[in-house]
Amino acid sequence: MLPDLARARAAQPTLLDADRPALLRTLAAALRRAEPEILSANRCDLDAAEQRGTPPPLIDRLLLDRGRLLQVAGSLEEIAALPEPLEQVLACWEHPNGLRIQQVTVPFGLIAVIYESRPNVTVDVAGLALRAGSAAYLRGSTAAARSNRAILAALRSGLAEFGLPEALLAHSCLEDRSDIAALLAARHLVDLLVPRGGAELIRWVVEQAKVPVLETGAGVCHLFLDEDADLEMAKAVVVNAKCQRPGVCNAIETLLVHRACAERLLPAICKELRDRGVELRGDAAVRALFPAARPATEDDWAAEYLDLVLAVRVVSSLEEAVSHINRFGTHHSDGIVTSSPQRGRSFQRSVDSAVVYVNSSTRFTDGAEFGFGAELGISTQKLHARGPVGLAQLVTTQYRVDGSGQVR
Amino acid sequence: MLPDLARARAAQPTLLDADRPALLRTLAAALRRAEPEILSANRCDLDAAEQRGTPPPLIDRLLLDRGRLLQVAGSLEEIAALPEPLEQVLACWEHPNGLRIQQVTVPFGLIAVIYESRPNVTVDVAGLALRAGSAAYLRGSTAAARSNRAILAALRSGLAEFGLPEALLAHSCLEDRSDIAALLAARHLVDLLVPRGGAELIRWVVEQAKVPVLETGAGVCHLFLDEDADLEMAKAVVVNAKCQRPGVCNAIETLLVHRACAERLLPAICKELRDRGVELRGDAAVRALFPAARPATEDDWAAEYLDLVLAVRVVSSLEEAVSHINRFGTHHSDGIVTSSPQRGRSFQRSVDSAVVYVNSSTRFTDGAEFGFGAELGISTQKLHARGPVGLAQLVTTQYRVDGSGQVR
Repeated sequence: MLPDLARARAAQPTLLDADRPALLRTLAAALRRAEPEILSANRCDLDAAEQRGTPPPLIDRLLLDRGRLLQVAGSLEEIAALPEPLEQVLACWEHPNGLRIQQVTVPFGLIAVIYESRPNVTVDVAGLALRAGSAAYLRGSTAAARSNRAILAALRSGLAEFGLPEALLAHSCLEDRSDIAALLAARHLVDLLVPRGGAELIRWVVEQAKVPVLETGAGVCHLFLDEDADLEMAKAVVVNAKCQRPGVCNAIETLLVHRACAERLLPAICKELRDRGVELRGDAAVRALFPAARPATEDDWAAEYLDLVLAVRVVSSLEEAVSHINRFGTHHSDGIVTSSPQRGRSFQRSVDSAVVYVNSSTRFTDGAEFGFGAELGISTQKLHARGPVGLAQLVTTQYRVDGSGQVR
Repeated sequence: MLPDLARARAAQPTLLDADRPALLRTLAAALRRAEPEILSANRCDLDAAEQRGTPPPLIDRLLLDRGRLLQVAGSLEEIAALPEPLEQVLACWEHPNGLRIQQVTVPFGLIAVIYESRPNVTVDVAGLALRAGSAAYLRGSTAAARSNRAILAALRSGLAEFGLPEALLAHSCLEDRSDIAALLAARHLVDLLVPRGGAELIRWVVEQAKVPVLETGAGVCHLFLDEDADLEMAKAVVVNAKCQRPGVCNAIETLLVHRACAERLLPAICKELRDRGVELRGDAAVRALFPAARPATEDDWAAEYLDLVLAVRVVSSLEEAVSHINRFGTHHSDGIVTSSPQRGRSFQRSVDSAVVYVNSSTRFTDGAEFGFGAELGISTQKLHARGPVGLAQLVTTQYRVDGSGQVR
């Protein structure tokens, strides 16, 4: 894989003067033209997955049909239409000696992404990287290998049609992790590495990488119901944050309730959740109010269920809620339901997370909801970008200093 | 060291509501009051260093005297006066459903810095971190251990006087690197790690770290003299970039000269450099024009001399100069001397470095010269901050979303 990686990195400067929005529209057309090849390759991946006994939700993630393919082709056109991310002057000032200093957005160079089975990610990542002026190295899953190869073949034919090197898009999908290990060590070739996938994969990548990593993903998210929370608002927000799509990172995993309102709120909210099929795991105070809840263990506070399961705990104060969230959470998305704007703001300032909500479901932590368009993931780290990572975050900056012979 | 680290991280929220500019002025006063203790501790470090036969330039880096101590105390007051870095609203917009989304600057949490012998760095790092709302872990060198302990004692007495926990400033300085290894692995305690020091230390830290790192420092910087470069400007800029302070990271290590002007420029510039004590190492074309140059080897192109030594090479085009710089440089600071603004801009767009100069010495890559005040270092990476890292770069962001019960 290293030769492909080096070729991709070497090809990147060809993007500097290319009309990248037009390129993305060309890639969208190429993808639509290759529909028969892509769907037939995907059919092979699906057959193999079914033979292996892959569970239906994973089969669904792998599945491409005409509708989904047209949708990802359309997403390339949406990325084409986003505001230009490069050559934006973020700051410009003059040194007393007359030097003009400009801070300008420029490409990373090569963006590598390690991801799991969904083949639409292949298109989104390729589109975002190329639009941001970077080559891309796509490390997909073995389960989607045929689909990804067919997609890449289509995108590369689009690159060639546009007069750009096919090497700009590189790809691998070995069974083991030997190619990932090489990627993690490829300093000076990989400018940015983004792991997308399960918590274990992300942790392994972050701990092993010698190249710069943008950590995304794991979401142990919380809602805290403050002492004066309105019952109807609290119920609607909790139900939405837990039930609307429990398998995603911005769904909540733990509900914290102020002791002062537990008796007033908990029985009704727990009943509503149980009626919607949610398994509740509570501490002693919760179970005293709602005996049908199972006892929660210490492990429940740190669990990312990604399922219709919710840990519930009664706390004595806003400060105790904040401590719990900062200790057990993953610094992704957390919220408070409160009638006090002051307590809402205090909660936001104290919770050390990428997105902190007052009186809203946590489900809005998403590139499209934030108005960023396609997203590469949700950053849970503090370097570079925090929260939804869209096109605007996939660039770096350069200072350009213009003089007339200045010396120190 | 881990208990100290955990205590520092746990103490950080006390900074959120503190008047941090006033805190820094209190620390400056505490430092001035502790002058006798600090200078006497520094005398012990100097005696020990002299007994070990430490070379004079390193002794000078270690030395604190009244003037230097007053200067670093003054730098705390300058950091106090910088624009407030926290709670700045970088963006604010409304979701169609009425949610208000704000992106606000917030503290990292704990900033750890690994550095070498200069004790003034202890003060600058503590001041920048606290002003940015973060606790600091200072991993200094054993050679400066007594000086650093006396400085930390003074700063901690200032924290206590201000009613803040002394634990906000932690420090270690073991002989071996066992404490660094623990620091590199302290995920969830260290929010940002900045290594300052030699290239080998930085490389080791970047490769081993499991916590987020801001890579600073190594500077293999270049100047390229374009075909139509003016002799007098070229000479002044080259001499300044090499000779004014050869031991720093923004001094040049390699001079590239366009073949079309080599005969016109090289003999005069090489003579001037040699008269100023610079050892020249040239390729065959350079030596044909200036036989006193020693032959350069492949190793010279990647060498960071930090001394009065300069590698010199003739190239056939601007493109060849760019390739050389992107291949052998460290993406720090590089420049072109040219009469063509178009070629200058093309050079800036093609060189993959933090700061790219047209018709100026590279020596301006510096927090103070950029108007940022005290700096933590020069970032040579592309994540988060590139170029001089000052107070404004030592914060992260948080999205705060305010609603009235919105759900998806």
